[in-house]
Amino acid sequence: MNIAVVGLGIIGGSFCKAIKKYTDHRVIGINRTKSTAEKALKEGAIDEIGTHESLENADLIILSMYPQAVVDYVSRYGEYIKKGAVVTDVSGIKRAICPQMTELSEKFGFVFAGSHPMAGKETNGFDVSDADLYKNASYIIVPCNAGDSVVNMLSDFAKSIGFGTVKITTPEEHDRMIAFTSQLPHVLACSYVLSPCCPNHKGFSAGSYRDVSRVANINSTLWSELFLENKDPLISELDILIENITKIKDAIKAEDTDALKALLEKGREVKQALGE
Amino acid sequence: MNIAVVGLGIIGGSFCKAIKKYTDHRVIGINRTKSTAEKALKEGAIDEIGTHESLENADLIILSMYPQAVVDYVSRYGEYIKKGAVVTDVSGIKRAICPQMTELSEKFGFVFAGSHPMAGKETNGFDVSDADLYKNASYIIVPCNAGDSVVNMLSDFAKSIGFGTVKITTPEEHDRMIAFTSQLPHVLACSYVLSPCCPNHKGFSAGSYRDVSRVANINSTLWSELFLENKDPLISELDILIENITKIKDAIKAEDTDALKALLEKGREVKQALGE
Repeated sequence: MNIAVVGLGIIGGSFCKAIKKYTDHRVIGINRTKSTAEKALKEGAIDEIGTHESLENADLIILSMYPQAVVDYVSRYGEYIKKGAVVTDVSGIKRAICPQMTELSEKFGFVFAGSHPMAGKETNGFDVSDADLYKNASYIIVPCNAGDSVVNMLSDFAKSIGFGTVKITTPEEHDRMIAFTSQLPHVLACSYVLSPCCPNHKGFSAGSYRDVSRVANINSTLWSELFLENKDPLISELDILIENITKIKDAIKAEDTDALKALLEKGREVKQALGE
Repeated sequence: MNIAVVGLGIIGGSFCKAIKKYTDHRVIGINRTKSTAEKALKEGAIDEIGTHESLENADLIILSMYPQAVVDYVSRYGEYIKKGAVVTDVSGIKRAICPQMTELSEKFGFVFAGSHPMAGKETNGFDVSDADLYKNASYIIVPCNAGDSVVNMLSDFAKSIGFGTVKITTPEEHDRMIAFTSQLPHVLACSYVLSPCCPNHKGFSAGSYRDVSRVANINSTLWSELFLENKDPLISELDILIENITKIKDAIKAEDTDALKALLEKGREVKQALGE
């Protein structure tokens, strides 16, 4: 099939490269910055450089853009989308996208299902995109108004380009879980590196520092949007986290070894029950 | 030289294996559980199984035990240590060890310098010890009453078995920095996995979840001891962290995009200035 990938950053670029590496589909790359699209074409990551007019040739459209930009783009260019085409996004939030995209799909006659590829790096842009970024990662599908056949098609497609598992869920469950698995670690990383000790960490640090601080090199525009559009679940997770940190802090302050050990044991048990 | 390694867990075991792999020193392994020492001997990680009486044959003694156990062991068996021998530990705290160990070194006539190898894994025990655990890691030396020649000897020794850098510091700076680089991430990991979302994370998670939760599979006995013996610096770091998380939370709550972006930018700038 013909696949249009709109937005050739790390996520979109990795889709293009994975499709070219692992399938026979034809890839149309659409990107605001021309030079990036030209680079992608030169590297063989896409078969042609497209514009919004190319949307009419696509059977599957992957919108690899910031959440609000997805809605804006389709509002503007939805009329170019082929009737019955499957449109998906890659956004890290779904409640703020799905109702509007479902409405637009009805208006313009395409099928929308939300997607969220659970992979990334601590740096961004086409240059760090990778045909194997999605290897063994999870591909989340939020069906919205898509029926089983479309969900199955997306699922098969995801597996064909390397994803290891597919998770089908609702916008609500997606956003609640992502607040915990992805947004919370990003808040944490930025908060962590603001300690006055951080600039002097070298020589005193190892894996623990590296892991917690890894994603602090954040795209503040993207993540501000994600955090604000997932306000309630994220604040709920932040409250839970602050409460749990405070419990451990209080046990240390009170020099209450038993309480402290019990709290650490609870953490260990959760992790061990997960087999991790 | 003859090196006695007391305690054949992941840290002690890795010292033995690295010494055997990269140097010609002779290794005496001393361990409470006989079967572990026998395993180490069988695997060639040590040259002989020793007891406290073997300490008199050692030029260098590496005490790879819990902090309080280091002091207890030397209090009990210090008379067996050869005069002028170099004794070091591997503890993650130093203010609680150094004064007592310095006193014991004067009493028994050995030289003590504290060490802290900045490496580990999320699992423990001899079975996961590794000749290359220390490859490119930092080796921290807290000289205590050791002179330059002993510090240089330890530094050369560390580099000879794979350590990439050596950091020489005071007990106070060590404990303040380690509260941030190592203890804080362990408190965080345990606090993080206590979210009710955690048991259902599979399919919704990727690198960020994995990184923050990695060390939650904690040895609660060891880490309770480390946290309590480094109470003040750790509580100070926990207060700073909670304050920074709360600032981000408040900006999200107020839907203050500018404030939120500014806070995330501050994190990004710290990380970027470090070239990470």
